[in-house]
Amino acid sequence: MQTHIEIEKKPDVQNPLLVVGLTGIGNVGRTAVSYLIDQLEASKFAELYSPHFPHITILNENDEMQLLNNEFYFYKNPDGDDVIFMTGHTQSVSPEGHYEIVETVLNTLADYNIKEIITIGGFGAGEIVEEPSVYGIVSNAEIQKRYENTDMSFDHSVGEVIGASGLFIGIGKRHGIDGLCILGETPGFLLSDPKATEEVLKNVESILNIDIDYENVNEKIQELEKVLNKIQKLQGDLMQGQGQQQGEKDLTYIG
Amino acid sequence: MQTHIEIEKKPDVQNPLLVVGLTGIGNVGRTAVSYLIDQLEASKFAELYSPHFPHITILNENDEMQLLNNEFYFYKNPDGDDVIFMTGHTQSVSPEGHYEIVETVLNTLADYNIKEIITIGGFGAGEIVEEPSVYGIVSNAEIQKRYENTDMSFDHSVGEVIGASGLFIGIGKRHGIDGLCILGETPGFLLSDPKATEEVLKNVESILNIDIDYENVNEKIQELEKVLNKIQKLQGDLMQGQGQQQGEKDLTYIG
Amino acid sequence: MQTHIEIEKKPDVQNPLLVVGLTGIGNVGRTAVSYLIDQLEASKFAELYSPHFPHITILNENDEMQLLNNEFYFYKNPDGDDVIFMTGHTQSVSPEGHYEIVETVLNTLADYNIKEIITIGGFGAGEIVEEPSVYGIVSNAEIQKRYENTDMSFDHSVGEVIGASGLFIGIGKRHGIDGLCILGETPGFLLSDPKATEEVLKNVESILNIDIDYENVNEKIQELEKVLNKIQKLQGDLMQGQGQQQGEKDLTYIG
Amino acid sequence: MQTHIEIEKKPDVQNPLLVVGLTGIGNVGRTAVSYLIDQLEASKFAELYSPHFPHITILNENDEMQLLNNEFYFYKNPDGDDVIFMTGHTQSVSPEGHYEIVETVLNTLADYNIKEIITIGGFGAGEIVEEPSVYGIVSNAEIQKRYENTDMSFDHSVGEVIGASGLFIGIGKRHGIDGLCILGETPGFLLSDPKATEEVLKNVESILNIDIDYENVNEKIQELEKVLNKIQKLQGDLMQGQGQQQGEKDLTYIG
Repeated sequence: MQTHIEIEKKPDVQNPLLVVGLTGIGNVGRTAVSYLIDQLEASKFAELYSPHFPHITILNENDEMQLLNNEFYFYKNPDGDDVIFMTGHTQSVSPEGHYEIVETVLNTLADYNIKEIITIGGFGAGEIVEEPSVYGIVSNAEIQKRYENTDMSFDHSVGEVIGASGLFIGIGKRHGIDGLCILGETPGFLLSDPKATEEVLKNVESILNIDIDYENVNEKIQELEKVLNKIQKLQGDLMQGQGQQQGEKDLTYIG
Repeated sequence: MQTHIEIEKKPDVQNPLLVVGLTGIGNVGRTAVSYLIDQLEASKFAELYSPHFPHITILNENDEMQLLNNEFYFYKNPDGDDVIFMTGHTQSVSPEGHYEIVETVLNTLADYNIKEIITIGGFGAGEIVEEPSVYGIVSNAEIQKRYENTDMSFDHSVGEVIGASGLFIGIGKRHGIDGLCILGETPGFLLSDPKATEEVLKNVESILNIDIDYENVNEKIQELEKVLNKIQKLQGDLMQGQGQQQGEKDLTYIG
Repeated sequence: MQTHIEIEKKPDVQNPLLVVGLTGIGNVGRTAVSYLIDQLEASKFAELYSPHFPHITILNENDEMQLLNNEFYFYKNPDGDDVIFMTGHTQSVSPEGHYEIVETVLNTLADYNIKEIITIGGFGAGEIVEEPSVYGIVSNAEIQKRYENTDMSFDHSVGEVIGASGLFIGIGKRHGIDGLCILGETPGFLLSDPKATEEVLKNVESILNIDIDYENVNEKIQELEKVLNKIQKLQGDLMQGQGQQQGEKDLTYIG
Repeated sequence: MQTHIEIEKKPDVQNPLLVVGLTGIGNVGRTAVSYLIDQLEASKFAELYSPHFPHITILNENDEMQLLNNEFYFYKNPDGDDVIFMTGHTQSVSPEGHYEIVETVLNTLADYNIKEIITIGGFGAGEIVEEPSVYGIVSNAEIQKRYENTDMSFDHSVGEVIGASGLFIGIGKRHGIDGLCILGETPGFLLSDPKATEEVLKNVESILNIDIDYENVNEKIQELEKVLNKIQKLQGDLMQGQGQQQGEKDLTYIG
């Protein structure tokens, strides 16, 4: 199996933004993009599979077994740029896989003329923060002015990014696509963080010119936590090379 | 060397089930499928070799040196679906290898029109269980009713699977093949578990519509333990990066 | 993404020397070559990207996000051999990647008929040294006499080299290109070492027949340290498999 | 760079035996084959390079820098089978590389119709042994009788082999070539073991129908130890992920 995208239907979009929110620190990207998909009732149109994902299968919402994957949704935006959303269960287990997955996405979506890439992630403050900041990093200095009216800080106290949130901007730049990375401040030791997610969403709301109802953020994130918790636990075990992990009372592990 | 299957003879089967039991927690899959092959006098027809297996060689039953491999057997079933069995010494050492091996099997066996994939594994209870439960997970909700008359629990207290038992179902689904994963409850700290194996076999007996004599389960599993023990020990050492392991009294290790 | 070199413009050189200084112990190679590029106002003409680099992005001097890379500069030398310089943020994360990157560089630069490869690195003394020695190792015994007038010691107390500094010489030799590895003595526990860098530069100055002003060495290295520190810290974390690293006060880590 | 063999001249052999002795526990294989090459004045005809070797370069006997490699020698035997010897600095760093290297050797040497493969290794007793045993393992039971007149034990107390000594026999068998693995008992904690090497050599002497002078075994092995020591130490460091190792007084480490 090579990293590949299975397209179920052609997305009805014109020069869309690509908005990426994957798993990571505080899972800010994953929860924010999941909430956006839910709020905007975006349509799923493709799935990405990769041999660089952990060799784990999980149950989907219908209790059916499935491979870990990343998913793509589109939103035909009446008031702004069309959007393709990317989210999913996991990121690559190797550096080489990270580069391959981002390249595969950009090559496959090249047909739709991505206008700009926006990635969402978290950065770890190491402690509980009452009012999480949101930082922006751009691929080219001149596009920063597009975001003057947002609450994002561009003071560059954040200097580097690990994983897909950064690679999408860096590799996108080599493909000639502008990019913005939005990072919400989060303690780093929490599985999810509704407060950071909400702060990030406010900025995305303004950029996409959409309306978000924040009433269900906590509830939706709690639902997501079940899946996040399972995968994170298993990946942690795999990374420690524990292929013959002993089970626990809740029957989490299987050989 | 690429992952490849060496087919010794064409299996005489029509739309067979593929029943997979590899090494893993409690080695439930490996022991169950080995016992089935023995009981049904299934015919070996192919071997799979992969560079993603550990770089170990072992002695076969004739004290001849051989590569680690997986093996394929077929059973022409007079009373139900024909069956192809897959079992073997080991699984892949890397996530990428896991995906590659499953893909290679499904692509190679595509000629025989696999009707359904059934994988057998264990899940770790973390403690000795007097009466091991058997859990079933399906690839599609609608096929669950096929197994209504078995003892399997479909209560989904098992949420995720590591390794080939899950990947065969998940990747099989991408190939349009239905799948069932059968998991026997086992402590997790035992090398093999005749009780869990027997509970699993009862369900497989019903699904395949065959007759199994359970008298020799303990004895057969004890025979298998010799091989299981050797490989598990060596793999454990390799995973800890101990390429220059010191030997033991029983001359187990060789540089 | 494969390892590849993006050439921005054709370098105006004839039979150049290839002078390589990458990250490594004491970062002697990286700081020495960066200083040379600065002093000689060498022209950047190409960038190398590789999936074997860590999956990290950083901010460039304009606070724009970019992939980690290696860079190539050329210098049209009026008083000696023309030079192509190679430096960069990082080296490969895997042995296989190391070999691939060196091969890619030599194959790509084959058009320019590299005359000789000179790599610069450090070796760890394990303690502060007042007057750092500089050692030379050659690819072929007969070329050692070319360096008789330098201060380098060829007493071969250094017996082996890890990483690109050695591989460029070893692989270059397979391509029929002579090579010299210059190693500056450095404690090993310092991020950079102006004294070792300066001692190395004196030898390169003589070989290239150029004039170097040493006044700004300390200052320039301090500037570089900011970038070196960030990347080294992140790489250290990645190598320990800490994908969900907790952040620090200075917001260094991002998920 | 792919794993490849650079053939310097065509070996003058007919249906040769391939005798392989690489680094490993007690380095019994490496020292035995090096001694044979020396005693028989075998002619070097090829070198193997691989990106799966550690990314290390070392000094050769002329103090010239070179890549780690494996080497091939041939011996035109007036009194028995012609021989191709394979020895070298190192083995693969990954399981995949192990399989690839063995395959590359067998494919490249296929032109010379290898008659049989003999690999030499050590097995760890875990303690000093006064009179080291020598064990033999064959690829096919029927060839064991060829070795009835040797001192080797075929009692199969050795059950499995890690690395090239075993893979050459296992993969050779898939290529239709018979094989014998000879293992000398060694404590396991020694870098080299003249006693085990000598016991192994006596058996090889008989198989090849050659005359070996054992007077210089100790001396020759001491010479080899210098190289063995360097590489083993560096590989150990690399396997612990210590890319920025601090140096020691003898200037062993270089960044």
